[in-house]
Amino acid sequence: MQISRFQQLIAERYLKRDADRGSPATFMWFIEEVGELATALAQNDKEKLPGEFADVFAWLCTLANINGVDIEKACVSKYSGKNDKGYK
Amino acid sequence: MQISRFQQLIAERYLKRDADRGSPATFMWFIEEVGELATALAQNDKEKLPGEFADVFAWLCTLANINGVDIEKACVSKYSGKNDKGYK
Repeated sequence: MQISRFQQLIAERYLKRDADRGSPATFMWFIEEVGELATALAQNDKEKLPGEFADVFAWLCTLANINGVDIEKACVSKYSGKNDKGYK
Repeated sequence: MQISRFQQLIAERYLKRDADRGSPATFMWFIEEVGELATALAQNDKEKLPGEFADVFAWLCTLANINGVDIEKACVSKYSGKNDKGYK
């Protein structure tokens, strides 16, 4: 599935309610999903992990949707050419 | 770009170092990127926002890579059919 198609799918289902809620409140729910991912990682819960990754990405798409950002375009722009992910 | 292709691109570039670092340390750097996204959202920084979304997704892919999770498969499984994103 294309990144843009998934972002669009999330918009079709949730944009109206997500936009009404706004960025700050939506960010809090995004962080709740990040916390659930942290729990699944810490417990090495192989059964729950895939769904938690999907949830975090879905809420990231929602944040992008209500802020007019095209994640696929941003990813291609930043990562298709040169190496740009910060090393730590 | 396919979700799986982007995850693979991140693996090709970063998997060795990311795997050596492990999940807990990688999660901390993922959260650093989430923090940068929060800053860009709070400041409504339209110039920085796309790159911050791309960085968060790239680090999410890294966490998935070192935990053997296929994000595209997880997204299709959880969101292609029934409505499953939690409403708040």
